[in-house]
Amino acid sequence: MQDNLRVNGDRLSARLNELAQVGRIPGDGVCRLALSDEDRAGRDLVVGWMKELGLTVKIDKIGNVVGIRPGREEGPPVMTGSHIDTVRTGGRYDGTLGVLAGLEVIATLNDAEIATKRPIAIAFFTNEEGSRFQPDMFGSLVYTGALSLEAARATKAIDGPTAGEELDRIGYAGPEPVGRPQAHAYVELHVEQGPVLEAEGFRIGAVEGVQGISWTELTLTGQSNHAGTTPMRLRKDAGYVAAEIAVFARKVAKDIGGYQVATVGALTVAPNLVNVVPNHVVMTVDLRNTDESRLREAEERIFAFAEQTAAAEGVGLARRTLARFEPVAFAPHLVSRVEAIARNFGLPVKRLPSGAGHDAQIMAAVCPACMIFVPSVGGISHNVEEYTAPADLTAGADVLLRLMLELAD
Amino acid sequence: MQDNLRVNGDRLSARLNELAQVGRIPGDGVCRLALSDEDRAGRDLVVGWMKELGLTVKIDKIGNVVGIRPGREEGPPVMTGSHIDTVRTGGRYDGTLGVLAGLEVIATLNDAEIATKRPIAIAFFTNEEGSRFQPDMFGSLVYTGALSLEAARATKAIDGPTAGEELDRIGYAGPEPVGRPQAHAYVELHVEQGPVLEAEGFRIGAVEGVQGISWTELTLTGQSNHAGTTPMRLRKDAGYVAAEIAVFARKVAKDIGGYQVATVGALTVAPNLVNVVPNHVVMTVDLRNTDESRLREAEERIFAFAEQTAAAEGVGLARRTLARFEPVAFAPHLVSRVEAIARNFGLPVKRLPSGAGHDAQIMAAVCPACMIFVPSVGGISHNVEEYTAPADLTAGADVLLRLMLELAD
Repeated sequence: MQDNLRVNGDRLSARLNELAQVGRIPGDGVCRLALSDEDRAGRDLVVGWMKELGLTVKIDKIGNVVGIRPGREEGPPVMTGSHIDTVRTGGRYDGTLGVLAGLEVIATLNDAEIATKRPIAIAFFTNEEGSRFQPDMFGSLVYTGALSLEAARATKAIDGPTAGEELDRIGYAGPEPVGRPQAHAYVELHVEQGPVLEAEGFRIGAVEGVQGISWTELTLTGQSNHAGTTPMRLRKDAGYVAAEIAVFARKVAKDIGGYQVATVGALTVAPNLVNVVPNHVVMTVDLRNTDESRLREAEERIFAFAEQTAAAEGVGLARRTLARFEPVAFAPHLVSRVEAIARNFGLPVKRLPSGAGHDAQIMAAVCPACMIFVPSVGGISHNVEEYTAPADLTAGADVLLRLMLELAD
Repeated sequence: MQDNLRVNGDRLSARLNELAQVGRIPGDGVCRLALSDEDRAGRDLVVGWMKELGLTVKIDKIGNVVGIRPGREEGPPVMTGSHIDTVRTGGRYDGTLGVLAGLEVIATLNDAEIATKRPIAIAFFTNEEGSRFQPDMFGSLVYTGALSLEAARATKAIDGPTAGEELDRIGYAGPEPVGRPQAHAYVELHVEQGPVLEAEGFRIGAVEGVQGISWTELTLTGQSNHAGTTPMRLRKDAGYVAAEIAVFARKVAKDIGGYQVATVGALTVAPNLVNVVPNHVVMTVDLRNTDESRLREAEERIFAFAEQTAAAEGVGLARRTLARFEPVAFAPHLVSRVEAIARNFGLPVKRLPSGAGHDAQIMAAVCPACMIFVPSVGGISHNVEEYTAPADLTAGADVLLRLMLELAD
């Protein structure tokens, strides 16, 4: 293995820049909603690059695209990739980095005339973002058998047509059966989409897994009363109970510590008048942790507190689960390899979980998988201001290259 | 003085019912916005009753109507009254009770052929509610000289025309100069619009004064971040700070106790998404107390806490005063008389402040004034479900009758 082999950062940046022109929006952002005309144009561009690099391009029935570079031996490829669809006002790195860094790995191997033992594959999965079709990540879900092709094709876009109709229309309902090739391992390079690496001075994240997610909606029903004439003791103030719950959620996150986060992101008060005691609040509680038992502890403590506090105020409480996913752990030996490679390269590296969802967590169900993160400036993502410094993009691609070489050998 | 003299409760209820047909809305409520066609019809009905009862009706330039029953001697009348305008979805007692109980006092005196020493006057003031023209209570404000006639006439209705235009249109810009007659004392019977009397089993409230009001808008500016990828320690969560402030406001109200109330009635969160840390909150804090120094203490404690909590979270805080009124104290000798009369009648009576604004607090600037409250079932007011039991209406009118007889003698 050539220990000194490095990617060409300028070439990577040039491809990122070229793809960012497809669906470009004001502020230097990108809008390439899944299976839209812009997505088709982006797909065409990337497929063209794959072919230029000599890859065999396979498109499956749900539109997942895999470019394969043969190995010295046949068998399951070492796979990398991500997605090239974006949210409505997305940045230029989310997803595309993982795909184009994969192409840069191929280009680097081609230039150095290196033949790996195992094949190498670069994939981009359909509709990772879920901004136009629900559920998100349906391409990788179908790829791994977690969702049927029929169900995914039947999904309706927010603007009307089904995913199947749009796949047919843009010409990306491919001939390949879904789930091929089976991967020897799956590695995904991605921007962090969070502030931790930048804030703490790390350049590489060795992603240990994806946080479990618990989304709950609480509806509080009190009594609307005159704010001047109703003594405190006679109130059934839904807004007050909501505030107590929000404060308690922060306390629980602190108590549990580690990767536990708790967010009250949405909160709507009615009648929402300065001089009326609120009688109705709908609020959400977003809890995440890499540890399922602690996530459950956070849920239990917050829900118990909510029940007690609502009851003490004479306020009704209804609870509805909006989403619940258990944490996903990446393959420990791969996480360790990411860490070791970064150290070897002199890149400050931190183990951390992913707070966002990624195709890698879906792929983890069918093969050893892991992720490499590079810093997102200010933690900003799903936003035209998303930014990662070129040196960090290159560092991430170098770690990806090294890991794939190791895994393909 | 005839100690056994009592009003005719059926006649009072009949008038309340008849006036409630004017501007009646579904749910047995009333919509008689100030200076609207419905208000004109209501005014015409009450003026007709005044004339039937032999009162001399005077209408001033801002539309305040005063019906005067002469005394054995000339001089300032003992005045009672309230208002007959309503909020958009009002009940049938708020305001009208005070006016029609005044007419019932007159009718009772007429029936008993009692001639009081001082004249007696029944007033209804223009635009007490402020639902169509701001400020509220502008009729009594002009009456007492606290607001100029010109300023009040120039006020624009929410639906376009000025108050002056509407006064002219409905024929209630009268010929009398404002501020006449000067009252010897002003007494107002009103429904409590709060739950205290009913909840505690009292039938009469001896109103000590009107609470001071402090309305503040707080604007919190944090940073919107991904709820999954942003560790708690790196957040600038405007929603969390808002929740802490709302919880603390409750604590301050409890600590200060007595008549202190604190309400966070309006609270708007942005971007208001389940998985995004809120970066922007606009919230209101409504504080009221009968004691100005304690009201100021509540303000100071809450604002200091808000500053500290926002700063600790890295959240910006801007504060804007929406309204600030000092408490008004009613004439102590009148409050004592209400209490004594109710006791004498065997009616359980409680001293309490008014949490809502009333014409009596404006009149208190120019003559001794006080108010008599009767229970509001459930504390419900400004609502079609506003209700006071007929026996309580009658009891309130009896106390009013007795007090006016004492004051007019």
